[in-house]
Amino acid sequence: MIPKERIDRLLEGYKELKIATLCSHSALQIFYGAKLEGIKTIGICTKEKKKLYERFPNTKPDEFVIVDDYRDVDFSEIVARSGVIIPHGSFVEYLGKKLDDAEVPIYGNRQSLVYERDRERMLSWLRKAGINVPKTMKPKEIKKPVIVKFPGAKGGRGYPIVKSYEEYKNKVGKRKAVAQEFISGIRAYPHYFNSIFGGVELLGVDRRIESNADEFARAIAAGYSDISFTIVANESIILRESLLLDYVKIGDAVVHASKKIFGGIFGPFCVETIVTPDLEIYAFEISARIVAGTNILYHPYAEFAYGKDMFIGRRIAVELKRALREKRMKEIVY
Amino acid sequence: MIPKERIDRLLEGYKELKIATLCSHSALQIFYGAKLEGIKTIGICTKEKKKLYERFPNTKPDEFVIVDDYRDVDFSEIVARSGVIIPHGSFVEYLGKKLDDAEVPIYGNRQSLVYERDRERMLSWLRKAGINVPKTMKPKEIKKPVIVKFPGAKGGRGYPIVKSYEEYKNKVGKRKAVAQEFISGIRAYPHYFNSIFGGVELLGVDRRIESNADEFARAIAAGYSDISFTIVANESIILRESLLLDYVKIGDAVVHASKKIFGGIFGPFCVETIVTPDLEIYAFEISARIVAGTNILYHPYAEFAYGKDMFIGRRIAVELKRALREKRMKEIVY
Amino acid sequence: MIPKERIDRLLEGYKELKIATLCSHSALQIFYGAKLEGIKTIGICTKEKKKLYERFPNTKPDEFVIVDDYRDVDFSEIVARSGVIIPHGSFVEYLGKKLDDAEVPIYGNRQSLVYERDRERMLSWLRKAGINVPKTMKPKEIKKPVIVKFPGAKGGRGYPIVKSYEEYKNKVGKRKAVAQEFISGIRAYPHYFNSIFGGVELLGVDRRIESNADEFARAIAAGYSDISFTIVANESIILRESLLLDYVKIGDAVVHASKKIFGGIFGPFCVETIVTPDLEIYAFEISARIVAGTNILYHPYAEFAYGKDMFIGRRIAVELKRALREKRMKEIVY
Repeated sequence: MIPKERIDRLLEGYKELKIATLCSHSALQIFYGAKLEGIKTIGICTKEKKKLYERFPNTKPDEFVIVDDYRDVDFSEIVARSGVIIPHGSFVEYLGKKLDDAEVPIYGNRQSLVYERDRERMLSWLRKAGINVPKTMKPKEIKKPVIVKFPGAKGGRGYPIVKSYEEYKNKVGKRKAVAQEFISGIRAYPHYFNSIFGGVELLGVDRRIESNADEFARAIAAGYSDISFTIVANESIILRESLLLDYVKIGDAVVHASKKIFGGIFGPFCVETIVTPDLEIYAFEISARIVAGTNILYHPYAEFAYGKDMFIGRRIAVELKRALREKRMKEIVY
Repeated sequence: MIPKERIDRLLEGYKELKIATLCSHSALQIFYGAKLEGIKTIGICTKEKKKLYERFPNTKPDEFVIVDDYRDVDFSEIVARSGVIIPHGSFVEYLGKKLDDAEVPIYGNRQSLVYERDRERMLSWLRKAGINVPKTMKPKEIKKPVIVKFPGAKGGRGYPIVKSYEEYKNKVGKRKAVAQEFISGIRAYPHYFNSIFGGVELLGVDRRIESNADEFARAIAAGYSDISFTIVANESIILRESLLLDYVKIGDAVVHASKKIFGGIFGPFCVETIVTPDLEIYAFEISARIVAGTNILYHPYAEFAYGKDMFIGRRIAVELKRALREKRMKEIVY
Repeated sequence: MIPKERIDRLLEGYKELKIATLCSHSALQIFYGAKLEGIKTIGICTKEKKKLYERFPNTKPDEFVIVDDYRDVDFSEIVARSGVIIPHGSFVEYLGKKLDDAEVPIYGNRQSLVYERDRERMLSWLRKAGINVPKTMKPKEIKKPVIVKFPGAKGGRGYPIVKSYEEYKNKVGKRKAVAQEFISGIRAYPHYFNSIFGGVELLGVDRRIESNADEFARAIAAGYSDISFTIVANESIILRESLLLDYVKIGDAVVHASKKIFGGIFGPFCVETIVTPDLEIYAFEISARIVAGTNILYHPYAEFAYGKDMFIGRRIAVELKRALREKRMKEIVY
């Protein structure tokens, strides 16, 4: 991984600060939040995708860096334009390990993305935080339903439910995968923000809408039996208030453990959870950066915690502005 | 169909502009949007239904035209009051063909409603736009699950799922109907607005909540097996950002095809779609006018595209105001 | 039950007015609403739970009364601080009958909570209001699916579906319970507010998300068969406009019947309903106070009815302020 000092030196050369990201995933709200806070934006974009941003003028980036493929982005161009990268799920998916050595300031701690990428490290991070995690099973141990997850953040596409070793062999074969105990309950995705100016904020909660799982009863009625979990959309939810303190503690514990393991996570993150009928919370994933569900602007929790008209994309811009003003950028950029 | 010139002449006689609609479907937000833009409103209403609007003073129309039955509305009274009709689903349901000859200015192109009314024309419109459409099958061809749809916009009431020709004969008999291939996935209803001042905007996306389909797992658990699709409510959803450009293109393609087929669609419309686990989008219907789901005010896409506090009902009022000011009403009223 | 006169005398001693409630259930929005209206707040809170409110500074109560257990709250301390209690679901759950004799002013009519507590009285209230209610069955009469409900407002936890007398004996045994006919449809929870200054307002509608019922299709796919109904979260929904007048009438009818039975219900309440595929509405419960689902701030109905930025917690504060100013507090506090 590129040494922190190299990134610090890049940052020292910056005359101004621009917010840069791939035009994908949660870019709409990242740009919109920056714009509301008066920060210029750079969109790393394919020619085709540019059409999308033209249609949403209030969130269209001020500058575009056109690329043919997100895998080939030339970060020196971002540095030349004084850009700080806001990482999101598409970075993890398209760039993967390349991000480790990218010569560009990235908001947050890029080490956290290493932990997100590697499911076993991620689960150990959750366990070190003292959070309930579904049991991970070896293929031969499968005696009750498991969800089989493949590496990368591909939005849940192609994760099968498997009930036995036999079924595992047929559906998964020798592919690299992690089998997690299937927990029956309701999924809830809390959106946290760890600020160096005051600790962990809980700014919203949503639920992903997955195809065809979330309309699977229709499919059952039509005689189908293959469930799948491709993320298609998100919707805002409001937790039962008695669960909220547990979620606050989960956010704190994840941050606390991250400090011990790899020097801390800064800015937005999400802990993917499921709540059982006994109101127990299981976490099955961490997204160590902004998640797409935060595209739902304006959740009541953000208003309770921070004030009206606040959302993750804007919260990032607020944090960067203040860190710049107070000369603390190096603490939150790597 | 009444000649366009007759409508143009009616419009020439108008001293002012009022927004008129049936007090049903999406009238609450149509009136509210008009009020926010300072346009007077006329509610065509039954005596009974008037009680509803009394309860929501911020959206109560300025004037009421009381009718016994929506089928019997006397449009000359709307013309006498300088009203322009905003068509919605209840016009299609209650007035049907009568709308073709109605001597009253209607916002949009009344030809588009002819295409909405006739499922085969509607499907050919979608196909001409190059959009994936579920296969339509003749009763004898039914070998896998189909949804059988009857004519009219009755909110999905009584559409059966049928898996064979035998079942079709039992459940549908000789009634006029279209059998569409059942697509397993997540429904998404994008709310478009085609403006003469700048093209197609995407101002929100929602999902209908259908009884009992959307709580059908409960019914299954209780031992029931008959699924049905009566629209009861709507909820806002946020699409995965990677799907958004596809939806922008669908909106454009529908408008483009409409120009070729019948002179274009203006103002709000919706393309009813379903997203499969492979992220393919199928469109199974067009609503060639405002849809009820837009009663969810304030979707983030409207804010990205247009600005804060915008929603379809208000967007209509903004468009009409500007067209009036720039003397272009005839382009968007028929 | 403590005589109304005693409460009136307590109120006469108040120098100012503060809003007090248990730090649970819907307290976040009750405090937030009070704060927006400039009313001081008192949080009755456990030491542990206080941490939650520290995290949401915009809704943190001005004063805390720390208790070890919500069952042991000393109301004289609330009176000493000029507090009026806003009752919510946790009062019903933790204090139950104790609330009847509590020497503290409570917003609304505490008699309504007696009716909420006793399922048979509650159902007779609904029937007197002329509202469709699912049939209540004696265990021996069970021939089709019923939901078995136990006393108290425990958020739906542990309510089994039972299809026969045999199954009832196994799953319920001799516990006190009410068996209600299972109605297949979509649940909708309208949020009403009965104001002494103008009657019943409909300020929002939501749907509870229950574990594991609302993701039960997943569980079915994984081979599970036990459905359960623990409330985990809530989401906003928008009703089909044609149902809205029915909901307005349901609110009116519940208030009208309450006047006859026990002197009326004031302030917020909810009627838990289910809408069938034939668009018939069945009510299966009344919550005679604010419900947790109203934590979704800003529903379009509130905007249509009252104006922008209104929600139940704030509406309560608005009502109390006006009643204080117009010296009508005694009418709405008992």
